[in-house]
Amino acid sequence: MPSFKAAILGFGTVGEGVYRILQEKREEIRENTGFTVDVVTILVKDKTKKRKPISGVKITDNIRDILDDPEIDVVFEAIVGEEPAYTYLSDAIEKGCHIITANKKMFAKHGPALLKHAEFRNVQVGFEATTAGGVPVIRTVSNLLAGDRIKRIQGILNGTSNFILTKMREEGSPFKKALLDAQKNGFAEADPSDDVDGTDAFRKLMILSSLSFGQQPDWEDVPVVGIEHIQPIDVIDASKGDLRYRHVADIWIDDNDKLLGTVGPVLIGANHPLFSIDGVDNAIIIETEYLGQLTLVGPGAGMYPTGSAMVADLLHIIRQQEVVMVTN
Amino acid sequence: MPSFKAAILGFGTVGEGVYRILQEKREEIRENTGFTVDVVTILVKDKTKKRKPISGVKITDNIRDILDDPEIDVVFEAIVGEEPAYTYLSDAIEKGCHIITANKKMFAKHGPALLKHAEFRNVQVGFEATTAGGVPVIRTVSNLLAGDRIKRIQGILNGTSNFILTKMREEGSPFKKALLDAQKNGFAEADPSDDVDGTDAFRKLMILSSLSFGQQPDWEDVPVVGIEHIQPIDVIDASKGDLRYRHVADIWIDDNDKLLGTVGPVLIGANHPLFSIDGVDNAIIIETEYLGQLTLVGPGAGMYPTGSAMVADLLHIIRQQEVVMVTN
Repeated sequence: MPSFKAAILGFGTVGEGVYRILQEKREEIRENTGFTVDVVTILVKDKTKKRKPISGVKITDNIRDILDDPEIDVVFEAIVGEEPAYTYLSDAIEKGCHIITANKKMFAKHGPALLKHAEFRNVQVGFEATTAGGVPVIRTVSNLLAGDRIKRIQGILNGTSNFILTKMREEGSPFKKALLDAQKNGFAEADPSDDVDGTDAFRKLMILSSLSFGQQPDWEDVPVVGIEHIQPIDVIDASKGDLRYRHVADIWIDDNDKLLGTVGPVLIGANHPLFSIDGVDNAIIIETEYLGQLTLVGPGAGMYPTGSAMVADLLHIIRQQEVVMVTN
Repeated sequence: MPSFKAAILGFGTVGEGVYRILQEKREEIRENTGFTVDVVTILVKDKTKKRKPISGVKITDNIRDILDDPEIDVVFEAIVGEEPAYTYLSDAIEKGCHIITANKKMFAKHGPALLKHAEFRNVQVGFEATTAGGVPVIRTVSNLLAGDRIKRIQGILNGTSNFILTKMREEGSPFKKALLDAQKNGFAEADPSDDVDGTDAFRKLMILSSLSFGQQPDWEDVPVVGIEHIQPIDVIDASKGDLRYRHVADIWIDDNDKLLGTVGPVLIGANHPLFSIDGVDNAIIIETEYLGQLTLVGPGAGMYPTGSAMVADLLHIIRQQEVVMVTN
């Protein structure tokens, strides 16, 4: 039985989600692909932290245990922040590993370089989980690109902001109270600044931009506005006119073939596809030459949705492997 | 330059859409896949019908011109009805062609047999266009299946019905007037029975059932109700309670592992993902073990959306071919 050996960098919510799904679906994956997937090493920050023992898996705080292991075929990365994630993944590619990442901060900036590097080394890069969690927007756009043309992508790319705006409308809460609610429900980090000031949505938009248009606009040229300054009275006034505030990230090619982007709160009416997207969901409208508008809506975060997006990337890589084996 | 030779069965809206997209995107497809795609033969019912001449393409009313041509790699099928479509495609598979179909009536019934036959002959079957037109629901479900589990699929699978229900609500029209409107706008056939009595949605549901659950319920066990008997007063009363009629096809595994399906009008509230789907759009909610709910919304019909779904199937087939070539 051919097998895939995997390492996981980071064992927070997302890393653990990947591990659990690979365990729970071990048999199905074997049946569907003909491959077993074994997680052999997990990189953690603090090795002394108490955790349930995981049988057959090496827990390490030394990246060399992964990069120097010739057996490892694929590296899942679920760390936060640009570094050391970028360096680790770059080294993993160099040694011939496929990589699968959920790290949007790192990928917005270094994604194009990693993809080029991977092409050169003939390995694959999965980044479905960087954008809109469990919503398969990366795969969908990739599939569309070969025979169609993307004209515009707009979406609600940050679940925390959307949860807060929903609370403000439904309960008339001020921003700070809605944010506290989000934190209590596990929908916002202790430091929520990247989520509420638009930075997180901006990064995901840049990832979508590279994928859809083969380029990103100059980052300084994209206005990025958050939701911190929206007042309850604004939200209530909007509701009276049957309008809703949504925090929308938007990127499109204008009539002069210029790539333009914006991120910020937008007032939208009841016929807009984003009007009814409440709570922590993400939603993406893909506008193409042939399809018109295609809208995807689903969970933008969470252990299982994000973990399953990363596992889906792996299965895609394995299926290509499968074809190769069958034909040899 | 490796090339793919294609035949198209049927040159109505969908068949012509496929042809046009393949012409318009010829260069992009070549750049993206390394293959040129040449349409060499088109099967029509009436060869004497006046049409614009198509250079380099043989127009025929004899299926043997396609089945006996050893050069053809892929057959696009865009005929209406079970036969002769099923026989043609079965013969095409037997001679080693990939097939790509938009024929939901044929595929709901014969899809499982065609897929088995194709597996045996080591060719592929594309059927994205059979269900929800340009919305990539087949590809999305296929991708989810390997590492996740589908629990339920519900959706608006017939754009004609949805257009009529929308008109009845927005304009207070009776069913017959709304149907006439749909016909005038090109959103309903001269004989609209399959669309308005639920049969068309039922067929698409059976295709989704085979794909998602590996089986279909007994057809007689699925209650199928259309929209013909909904009165304007029903629609208006619903609106007063902030409810809307949607024609919903629904299939799920119950707690006893039994596969159940229904097709018919349902009253839904403002928080339901199908509430805001107006006009000819289709929408599908995929409920899985890991993702929760994923919703896809987009054009359920039309020359370019449906044609592009078929071309996307072809590109998927070609990409697998590509991997094979690279590794040999």
